[in-house]
Amino acid sequence: MPGGRMETLFITQRDMAELIRLVGVHAVMDTMIEALDRALTEHGRAPHALVPRAGFKYDRPNPGVLEWMPFHEPGRAVTIKTVGYHPSNVARGLPTILATVQRFDQATGHLLVAADGVLLTAIRTGAASAVATRVLAIPDASTLGIVGAGAQAVTQAHAISRVCPINEILVHDVDPGAAQSIARRLAFLAVDVRVTTIDELEQRSDVVSTVTTVRPGEGPVLPAAGLHDHVHVNAVGSDLPGKTELPLGFLRRALVCPDFRSQAMQEGECQRLTADEIGPELSEVLAHPGGFAARRRSPTVFDSTGFALEDHVALDVVIQLTDEYGLGTRAALEHIPGDPRNPYELGSLAMAVDPWDDLDDHERVGT
Amino acid sequence: MPGGRMETLFITQRDMAELIRLVGVHAVMDTMIEALDRALTEHGRAPHALVPRAGFKYDRPNPGVLEWMPFHEPGRAVTIKTVGYHPSNVARGLPTILATVQRFDQATGHLLVAADGVLLTAIRTGAASAVATRVLAIPDASTLGIVGAGAQAVTQAHAISRVCPINEILVHDVDPGAAQSIARRLAFLAVDVRVTTIDELEQRSDVVSTVTTVRPGEGPVLPAAGLHDHVHVNAVGSDLPGKTELPLGFLRRALVCPDFRSQAMQEGECQRLTADEIGPELSEVLAHPGGFAARRRSPTVFDSTGFALEDHVALDVVIQLTDEYGLGTRAALEHIPGDPRNPYELGSLAMAVDPWDDLDDHERVGT
Repeated sequence: MPGGRMETLFITQRDMAELIRLVGVHAVMDTMIEALDRALTEHGRAPHALVPRAGFKYDRPNPGVLEWMPFHEPGRAVTIKTVGYHPSNVARGLPTILATVQRFDQATGHLLVAADGVLLTAIRTGAASAVATRVLAIPDASTLGIVGAGAQAVTQAHAISRVCPINEILVHDVDPGAAQSIARRLAFLAVDVRVTTIDELEQRSDVVSTVTTVRPGEGPVLPAAGLHDHVHVNAVGSDLPGKTELPLGFLRRALVCPDFRSQAMQEGECQRLTADEIGPELSEVLAHPGGFAARRRSPTVFDSTGFALEDHVALDVVIQLTDEYGLGTRAALEHIPGDPRNPYELGSLAMAVDPWDDLDDHERVGT
Repeated sequence: MPGGRMETLFITQRDMAELIRLVGVHAVMDTMIEALDRALTEHGRAPHALVPRAGFKYDRPNPGVLEWMPFHEPGRAVTIKTVGYHPSNVARGLPTILATVQRFDQATGHLLVAADGVLLTAIRTGAASAVATRVLAIPDASTLGIVGAGAQAVTQAHAISRVCPINEILVHDVDPGAAQSIARRLAFLAVDVRVTTIDELEQRSDVVSTVTTVRPGEGPVLPAAGLHDHVHVNAVGSDLPGKTELPLGFLRRALVCPDFRSQAMQEGECQRLTADEIGPELSEVLAHPGGFAARRRSPTVFDSTGFALEDHVALDVVIQLTDEYGLGTRAALEHIPGDPRNPYELGSLAMAVDPWDDLDDHERVGT
């Protein structure tokens, strides 16, 4: 693509792969965890504008949603992630979650960056669970249970093992195909990974992440009766009205901390709770960790619906790393004419050849 | 950029300029007018999902808005335009309106196309006024008045002159800089273009387009007292709460046809009218033109807020032309791993060099 005066930085599949290769997957995850921790800790104090995500939901040809997630950091930038959720994708070799992220300069509306959102979403969702786990789980948590062995399971296991001394990962999935390959996909963590029953998973796990594609109304995905008193659960899969993963009784006896309360009440585990049954947002726990330290010994839930602040911060991390390593491609996507008042001023390209050859008298715009 | 299995078609500034050069600016506009006419005529009957646009509004560093405009054609595709409106842009050599458009495959959520939205918006906004003018103005309209001589004035004049026998264009702008250059910018139309007073403009014009950046609460931009009884006004500039261009008295005696009623009641001229003072949507007029033919002799207003269906249709036109002329660049923006359940499967690129060089034991994901 040619250069232009106002270019957009494209961070593509290739750039994301190069980034992981050059920076190292652990360093990328660690950077993301610390960036999210800082941003979420400051969230309650920083000015921002945030709206619960909205989208189109449909059943044909495949059940799915396509959503937009906007975030505004006043005076600086707007980030909008567009994200699709289509469980039928996996059968055709595509991730359930496909996404891209856009970053706009708030001073002009110019599109600064368009980036992959698939790897970004997987990493930031893992990182968010790590941030929550670090503040809500017991500090010496060594067994991690994962319910649902899809793509998000990989980054949940990765992120949580960066903040806890995990030496055993137990996995349960109703789909034998997903369960079968999880040990191979988690081999890079060099810990024992075992597929097991939901009962054993409950009895042994200090921390659990639920990352399923259970259909709305068909949960819960675990009985919760056998869970440790000190268990911390990252409830990640509930992200649609009607789609929840945990039993109501367990939710009611746990401290449930949503990422973004108003959105979680629409789409998360919180949609089944009354307002006074819902605990503080994760941001509040992070800002006042001492106040919640005693709660680590009783059940806690991070109700992770995934929200636009996380994507904003994750994109900041990716942009910074991309810049450091000289990655990305710049191209002028927006048609910005030489004369801002003349959309038909086509620049040097068009001047090279008569752009008006369909006019009888060959008059040129701007002459 | 390299290829990938699931690529996105990028339609850049260069492609848009090439398209105009190869197809011809009149042919592009005519194609857009007919495509919009068809789509708006069928709109009331076709299934679709459409939400009024939403966005972030701010005053610093410059007053502006950044908005998202989603449209869903069930079973086929979702189009989302992101659009900024920053009147201060012109002083720094940028268009007031900067925009990009995204097209998603509804079956998978894959981003099929990312395209310029600046030229697209200017052309489709002109084309929408042409569609409305053709059905609401007198058929022999020969004098066009334009209030506000910015970028949108160019495509208003262009589009309307494609559907009416315009032989005179009168322009009024409170900014001498904009007024000064309009004749040059409209020279390609080969009709008489004259900057004049608002009074003469009113007295002579058969059709008027208002395309100003008047600030919320500072309208109207014309008194309307001197307008012909048969005048048709395309009210294009009102697109924010509080921003309106026409006097209330005139609106009340005219047949006011919004493009998208619920959005126009929030952002258009219709925000000043009660529900029963608002006429049919343009789509309804187009579907039943006979029923409104008599209204051409009394004042009519097209309340053009600009809506997502128009961008969806305009993008269809641009995609089709791009395809015909072999334009556009394909690249894999989304990170789609070879194994849809393994976000860290980095494909052949990463396999060439050890991606895990920060691990002690050099274990590889997926082996």
